[in-house]
Amino acid sequence: MPSISTKGREMPASPIRKLTPYADQAKALGKQVYHLNIGQPDIETPQGMLDAVRSIDFKIWAYTPSEGTAAYRDKLSGYYNKLGYNITPTDILVTNGGSEAITIAMQACVGPGEEIIIPEPFYANYNGFACSAGIRITPILSYIDDGFALPSIAAFEEAITEKTRAIAICSPNNPTGYLYSSEEMQALRDLCIKHDLFLLADEAYREFCYDGREFISPMHLAGLEQHAVILDTVSKRYSACGARLGCIITKNKELWQVALKFAQARLSPPAVAQIAATAAVDTPQSYFDRVKGEYEARRDTLVDGLNNIEGVYCPKPGGAFYVLARLPVDDADRFCQWMLEHFDYENQTVMMAPASGFYSAAHAGKDQVRLAYVLNTDDLKKSLACIERGLAVYPGRR
Amino acid sequence: MPSISTKGREMPASPIRKLTPYADQAKALGKQVYHLNIGQPDIETPQGMLDAVRSIDFKIWAYTPSEGTAAYRDKLSGYYNKLGYNITPTDILVTNGGSEAITIAMQACVGPGEEIIIPEPFYANYNGFACSAGIRITPILSYIDDGFALPSIAAFEEAITEKTRAIAICSPNNPTGYLYSSEEMQALRDLCIKHDLFLLADEAYREFCYDGREFISPMHLAGLEQHAVILDTVSKRYSACGARLGCIITKNKELWQVALKFAQARLSPPAVAQIAATAAVDTPQSYFDRVKGEYEARRDTLVDGLNNIEGVYCPKPGGAFYVLARLPVDDADRFCQWMLEHFDYENQTVMMAPASGFYSAAHAGKDQVRLAYVLNTDDLKKSLACIERGLAVYPGRR
Repeated sequence: MPSISTKGREMPASPIRKLTPYADQAKALGKQVYHLNIGQPDIETPQGMLDAVRSIDFKIWAYTPSEGTAAYRDKLSGYYNKLGYNITPTDILVTNGGSEAITIAMQACVGPGEEIIIPEPFYANYNGFACSAGIRITPILSYIDDGFALPSIAAFEEAITEKTRAIAICSPNNPTGYLYSSEEMQALRDLCIKHDLFLLADEAYREFCYDGREFISPMHLAGLEQHAVILDTVSKRYSACGARLGCIITKNKELWQVALKFAQARLSPPAVAQIAATAAVDTPQSYFDRVKGEYEARRDTLVDGLNNIEGVYCPKPGGAFYVLARLPVDDADRFCQWMLEHFDYENQTVMMAPASGFYSAAHAGKDQVRLAYVLNTDDLKKSLACIERGLAVYPGRR
Repeated sequence: MPSISTKGREMPASPIRKLTPYADQAKALGKQVYHLNIGQPDIETPQGMLDAVRSIDFKIWAYTPSEGTAAYRDKLSGYYNKLGYNITPTDILVTNGGSEAITIAMQACVGPGEEIIIPEPFYANYNGFACSAGIRITPILSYIDDGFALPSIAAFEEAITEKTRAIAICSPNNPTGYLYSSEEMQALRDLCIKHDLFLLADEAYREFCYDGREFISPMHLAGLEQHAVILDTVSKRYSACGARLGCIITKNKELWQVALKFAQARLSPPAVAQIAATAAVDTPQSYFDRVKGEYEARRDTLVDGLNNIEGVYCPKPGGAFYVLARLPVDDADRFCQWMLEHFDYENQTVMMAPASGFYSAAHAGKDQVRLAYVLNTDDLKKSLACIERGLAVYPGRR
């Protein structure tokens, strides 16, 4: 039997999945499990997008160009230009989901053995993509007591080596929900220009900014045209995670050409999803207003509810649909497992993602959990009741 | 401006695309260009598959499980078991096209800096996938005068080092069309068992075997259960290249789990494509009989036509829809470019893929071209007329 060699390519376990066996077990015992661990929204996909799927009229389900269809890139550039990105369709490279946008952009910007700096906690799959590509991530810690604001520029300066090629950010952030301010974005701009680094911006949650706060993209910042690389996806914007359609945007033509070579190797992004996403650009603003209002209400329910539980602290973030909360427990991994394995309240319990998997620093986030508010407010209230009672009786409470 | 570092990750240019600017130029001048360079079939996708797309009835276009939906894997295992693979749904991992099946399988089987042996000429994108993943390909030359049969086992033995983890094959082959015989497959089996190597089999063209020849998969060979890794796609089987749906099949549970981690990092394969491909499993045999008959007639037209041109030699392959032909020219790259740039016959010309890009050995295939018979026999005859006249007047004829 051939031996399996994962040396140099150890894929980290996903923090949102590692407790799945315990959730399955809880369900098998008849418990209702509220899933606050995953980012699958319960919001309906825009009707126009689904109608476009149902209206396909081709006879041959053919490859599209590796960079995406002209029709989609044209239409999509209109979406971005409304946001003030000032791009052309040729600045866009369509990908297999946001995941591939991240993978290709990392590989195009950062060579094997080179480094990318990412504030942590960060989206755990960045580790997998970097690890696959032989790229080293240099994490810089952000703190719950600062609401997960951008770490100091001094901390970045200290982390930059001659091997550093890029900084990656995600705003609004997964897993913290934090939305970078204009000042923070400008500080990043100055840093990237000073050190000639690419700035990769994962903007999967762009549409979800609350309290009237402004979304600032690297594409809004003068002087960053050759450094900015936007990573996007239709997954959250249109609640179309299963479409597997994302894109890279860069005005750096040399970089775009390098990224295209990776795209050509995998031939084509999905054809039907591009047809649907072309239609989705016409989704009326009322759809987003409704969805944003819903998420904002859920955020308030969840954050206020958490902060009302004794010993719990949860900053109120400006975007996305995640919060990272500190719990009065010895170990959040153990607590989350215990909630599934040993606890129920009126035969209900909650699945959360222990935050340790979003950090690389040892012990960081040990008492933190990520909660996705992808359930309606009623279910969120029931989830809060479970968390409160669970914390009251958990043997490892601190 | 940040510098782009592709050191250690130089993606090779695609042999089927590098002449595209010349083809575009020819078209701009009003010439008709017959595209024999690409593997996009002109065959219609089965009606049932397209109907399934048009009938989607979900409200939320959600992620599917990373390994694919239970419904699709169940149905798909039935397809393979009809072929005698003797698998269960849990042996299948659904991927974003055959491309991702190749990437994930390579990464799961072969560590960074380790080696995979592949008979050449081979599908050029293997280079890109291996290069992305820091894997070294050790090519073993096969010869046009043998019809591109399996190289001698002695040649494999010589190429195996302590870093070799796998052998990869593609049968029926892209770019040669060669279909490995039962004896060749058994020789590979013995070799893989002897040296404990994985046998990766790219079976994208499984349905396209001609002259009543039998298709042999590693899944048919006793003793190879823990070594065999099948890479598949719906692209060619159902002429659904734009669906971007493939899969990995392995009965090696440890390997499957490693592959799953890579699949989890990119979250999900496309949802609509899985619904369509589930329906596609019910495509009637008459569809395949018709398509196979069509391709077989095209192959005969093309191969016989080529061999009737003075100085041209083209083996008649047993499968797929490609042939590799030797032309009486100084340099096939130059000839193919010349055909687009300087030649026309009745305002028509032909785009071919120079074979050099399918070889890594220096000078190998220098006088060879790959032709895809994805056009109807009428267009193939016109293409042949162009090639014949082109060769007659090409300044670099030998």
